[in-house]
Amino acid sequence: MKVIKIGGNIVDNPEKLDRFLADFASLEGEKALVHGGGKIATQLCNRLNVNTSMVDGRRVTDAETLKVVTMVYAGLINKTIVGKLQTLGCNALGLSGADGRLIVSRRRPAAPVDYGFVGDPIPEKFGLTTAKSLIDSGFTPIIAPITLSESGDLFNTNADTVAQALALGLSAAYDAELVYCFEKQGVLMDVNDDSSVIPEITPTSFEALKSQGVVADGMLPKLENAFKAIAGGVRSVTICSAENLLKPGYGGTTLRK
Amino acid sequence: MKVIKIGGNIVDNPEKLDRFLADFASLEGEKALVHGGGKIATQLCNRLNVNTSMVDGRRVTDAETLKVVTMVYAGLINKTIVGKLQTLGCNALGLSGADGRLIVSRRRPAAPVDYGFVGDPIPEKFGLTTAKSLIDSGFTPIIAPITLSESGDLFNTNADTVAQALALGLSAAYDAELVYCFEKQGVLMDVNDDSSVIPEITPTSFEALKSQGVVADGMLPKLENAFKAIAGGVRSVTICSAENLLKPGYGGTTLRK
Repeated sequence: MKVIKIGGNIVDNPEKLDRFLADFASLEGEKALVHGGGKIATQLCNRLNVNTSMVDGRRVTDAETLKVVTMVYAGLINKTIVGKLQTLGCNALGLSGADGRLIVSRRRPAAPVDYGFVGDPIPEKFGLTTAKSLIDSGFTPIIAPITLSESGDLFNTNADTVAQALALGLSAAYDAELVYCFEKQGVLMDVNDDSSVIPEITPTSFEALKSQGVVADGMLPKLENAFKAIAGGVRSVTICSAENLLKPGYGGTTLRK
Repeated sequence: MKVIKIGGNIVDNPEKLDRFLADFASLEGEKALVHGGGKIATQLCNRLNVNTSMVDGRRVTDAETLKVVTMVYAGLINKTIVGKLQTLGCNALGLSGADGRLIVSRRRPAAPVDYGFVGDPIPEKFGLTTAKSLIDSGFTPIIAPITLSESGDLFNTNADTVAQALALGLSAAYDAELVYCFEKQGVLMDVNDDSSVIPEITPTSFEALKSQGVVADGMLPKLENAFKAIAGGVRSVTICSAENLLKPGYGGTTLRK
């Protein structure tokens, strides 16, 4: 069972998106796709004069912004991707975390930063029954990063976090792997050399890479989160380029136990 | 199997919507909900300076308008309803016609009026396998009136038409009834007397009501379409107020063979 996440850089680029979706459709076996939102939500906020501010790279979601991201993520982007995948022979079914209570979340505490209507998934509330019903019926879930509070409200949720919650939850019933598609080829030994991809990282080699300073800054929390997912039951987490989905090992960096 | 359609007058009114959803959640047995869009899409088009024109009460859908209705119908309204129903104990799963190819449609011919990206459902392409999988797994489908062309494009589709296509398609596998919730109590014997609801109409009494002039104008095509659905296999079609969902016969007018 493959859980694949694409970010805004793919969603915002029609050619890249089409190429990625063709590759995704041709992947064998059970799979799910989590998509981010990209710039469309920000652009729509601007056109509507909805104030949208970012703190530490995360959007502050007030009531109006929540409406915009729900429209853009769960409506426009989700259904556009589903339509394209259906013509590519992939039986895509678009969902948010609210549908079938797939991803239930808790509002993030208002201190130190009040992110507004932003939720963090509650692992023990994962909708495994919903996920299993859909996957075992032959659907490919396409998931927008909008989640459900226990009182029925919608929350904006980081797409990387949704992908991780999904892979972790599915690992209770499937041999689940998690694949993050991003701008680079993987974790690079030399940040200026795209051909220096480190093919595999284990907890032991991770410690060495940290002490050598190879892994630092933004990559550090990403990899730490990935190792948490692996400790929780996910078989492996790969970081790769969306262009390499059909290459062996996705041409990227795979983290495993 | 009950297919229930609510229109914009309910979607636009939070109190009416909450009351309707509580009643809908408490309905026993298999059910599905088709929702219209209401004024939210028109308001959003206005705020975005997207030209939205109506011909014969139907929206002309250009590329920008299609984006807006996809966002509003399949995103905001669909997920808001799903969230509310989930807290009411109803295992709602929100869909558009694109998801699992549930409702495949054909672009309406450009003459005499070019409605743009508007599709009419193709009965023989109905996604019965998708619908059965979801319903038999215990989900309650909540359906936004966006449909899928055979080449993967999204089309705007009249919500009454989507509800009829759904009920007709489901009637191949279920004892399906169709319920349209609208502004009035039902078909009235005297248009000025809300207590004069005609409880039942058959094809024979329909002819009499037409010749007496009781049924005319906007109601005539609605009832003619309903009788087509019944001829196609739907057990009955009821026209009633959204407030009467739990009353015997929905307190409305039921059309049957």
